[in-house]
Amino acid sequence: MKFEIMRDRLLDGINDVMKAISQKVAIPILTGIKIEVNEKGLTMTGSDSDITICTFIPAEDNGEQIIKVAEKGNIVLQAKVFSEIARKLPTNEVTIEVVNGLQTHIQSGKSEFHLIGSDAEDYPVLPDVKDDYLFSLPSDLMKSIIRETVFAVSQQETRPILTGVHWEAKDGGLSCVATDSHRLARRLTVPEDMPDMPFSIVIPGKSLQELNKILPDNSESVDIVIADQQVLFKTRNVLFYSRLLEGNYPDTSRLIPSEYKTSIVVNGKHLLQAIDRASLLAREERNNIVRFSADDSNVIEISSNSPEVGKVEELLEATDLSGEDLKISFSAKYMMDALKAIDGQDVSIHFTGAMRPFILQAVGDDTILQLILPVRTY
Amino acid sequence: MKFEIMRDRLLDGINDVMKAISQKVAIPILTGIKIEVNEKGLTMTGSDSDITICTFIPAEDNGEQIIKVAEKGNIVLQAKVFSEIARKLPTNEVTIEVVNGLQTHIQSGKSEFHLIGSDAEDYPVLPDVKDDYLFSLPSDLMKSIIRETVFAVSQQETRPILTGVHWEAKDGGLSCVATDSHRLARRLTVPEDMPDMPFSIVIPGKSLQELNKILPDNSESVDIVIADQQVLFKTRNVLFYSRLLEGNYPDTSRLIPSEYKTSIVVNGKHLLQAIDRASLLAREERNNIVRFSADDSNVIEISSNSPEVGKVEELLEATDLSGEDLKISFSAKYMMDALKAIDGQDVSIHFTGAMRPFILQAVGDDTILQLILPVRTY
Repeated sequence: MKFEIMRDRLLDGINDVMKAISQKVAIPILTGIKIEVNEKGLTMTGSDSDITICTFIPAEDNGEQIIKVAEKGNIVLQAKVFSEIARKLPTNEVTIEVVNGLQTHIQSGKSEFHLIGSDAEDYPVLPDVKDDYLFSLPSDLMKSIIRETVFAVSQQETRPILTGVHWEAKDGGLSCVATDSHRLARRLTVPEDMPDMPFSIVIPGKSLQELNKILPDNSESVDIVIADQQVLFKTRNVLFYSRLLEGNYPDTSRLIPSEYKTSIVVNGKHLLQAIDRASLLAREERNNIVRFSADDSNVIEISSNSPEVGKVEELLEATDLSGEDLKISFSAKYMMDALKAIDGQDVSIHFTGAMRPFILQAVGDDTILQLILPVRTY
Repeated sequence: MKFEIMRDRLLDGINDVMKAISQKVAIPILTGIKIEVNEKGLTMTGSDSDITICTFIPAEDNGEQIIKVAEKGNIVLQAKVFSEIARKLPTNEVTIEVVNGLQTHIQSGKSEFHLIGSDAEDYPVLPDVKDDYLFSLPSDLMKSIIRETVFAVSQQETRPILTGVHWEAKDGGLSCVATDSHRLARRLTVPEDMPDMPFSIVIPGKSLQELNKILPDNSESVDIVIADQQVLFKTRNVLFYSRLLEGNYPDTSRLIPSEYKTSIVVNGKHLLQAIDRASLLAREERNNIVRFSADDSNVIEISSNSPEVGKVEELLEATDLSGEDLKISFSAKYMMDALKAIDGQDVSIHFTGAMRPFILQAVGDDTILQLILPVRTY
């Protein structure tokens, strides 16, 4: 194997595959990056066996030569050392060459590195994912869907299925739901080319977080291919494989109330800031609880107190307020997460009494729904 | 106590005094900020008993009213909560008022916080520092002196005196020396108003690091007042007190060689980058050692190797090279620290053989000296 490549392009590729690499893997070769080069270009692969990322750098891109391939071949190099070397090379021209089997020379300017690689034959093969269940979403929409749901997955392994986000195709649409059993986030969307057959998969939250870091902030299409125990996300030059969680996701639809006793419309950003301030004094021992009360005066009062430190009260004008008077308490963190997901627009909040779950939606947009279980304090 | 203040100015002051506050102090009241207001302005104090920082915000600054004092007084408020509140207040106008003894109201826009303060009478009094030994340095020069020496203090408590920087007045100049017994950093300077009487103090490295964060990047004068067990640094609105380390600092002057066998002049930035790359493969177990060799060809070779990962070699052209051929090994970290302190100019390095300490200086400037002990590998 021997090729010349531009350092910046090499580094972009390394940064992508590094997101799959963990130092805590059971299979030692997975601490490495698999490098394969042929006349078409360079493919690099990183994996922690839950997530596998493959990135392709074409030899020629828009008429510009990125890679000069002298001899095709493959090798596995220690990911941490290789990425640090690539980052610190003195010039933008890099030559990588394998000699005597596994000896790898990396040369740039007057620096020459000699790394001992591993045999690429020993690297696990990629998951076998057939193109049966295929649909696609624009990258920026995919990022929104992830951002609006993934924070609500459970951080605890007591019910492993809740550490994932439930993606379900039904009625021609895609429903994405996450819950940790104290709050729930749901995003509905209608992909243009949704397959007719229904599916129901649970994608690990961690995989979606890493995927979100790699996806570009544009409307480029991402293909989604679903297989038995794997899902594959394809962009132009990156393949992102994730294992799926096994088991049945609980039916969450019956949790969502359909009748309300109090409805409030309020500026989401102002509410978020007020909750943030109130949470400063919310005692940590009580799981960061703030109180929220509303009557027919259209003014909401947000408050919290800590016997040792003090208390805070804040008034906030509602755009609209209807229904019964209300006093309710909830986790400031859950409320802030939900408001951040809805992102600063006017928000309508629907309550069904102080001890029932309440929901938040953007005004005029029912594709995002955030649900929070209150806490008994009044 | 009652006053109105602009939030941004309050926050600047809080940020300064927070640098002295630790959550791990033995005296509970030191987790608070002492606030004193009178017709001249607001004074805030933070302390961990090693470092004490006092900041003053004048009621009027350049004709602009910063503080409206309605009633003078004082209080101690929990530093962490008070600083977070100040950061998140909704408007730039803040009113702070103490009622019923220790009840403190902080009001801004429609937010109202009620904190339980502590009695300012219980707060420790400031160290008593008389203006006997006084001289001054421009703030930016002081920051340079700190940056060029403090990194070389010992991180270990086995010889506590080495965790400080030795400031000594002699021959009308100021010498600042730090050493951890493997390397040494020295900075000489001649303050304009150096007092005639000599002094010799050891300032804790941690104090100097915090002082460096507070000092402005300009030539404003900093007054330095030395007392028995304290040093006080005064800027226009900030007083920074530090305790001094007790004990005798070792005589380091005899460590510095005065005769050399090999002298090299090289671009400091290029050498720094080459060492940085070589250290990527320097085995961590061997304390990050790189090899350095020079002969009469004016080309330096820098190399390192790790039996498990591989090796690296790099050639670097010297601007000038005289004396005996040399092969020497040293800690990459110490070399990089020293080169960063000298900061990118042409550097001359003087060796006295492979097992003797060597020194680095900026070409044409002998005020900074860095000394490193080599390691036996050749």
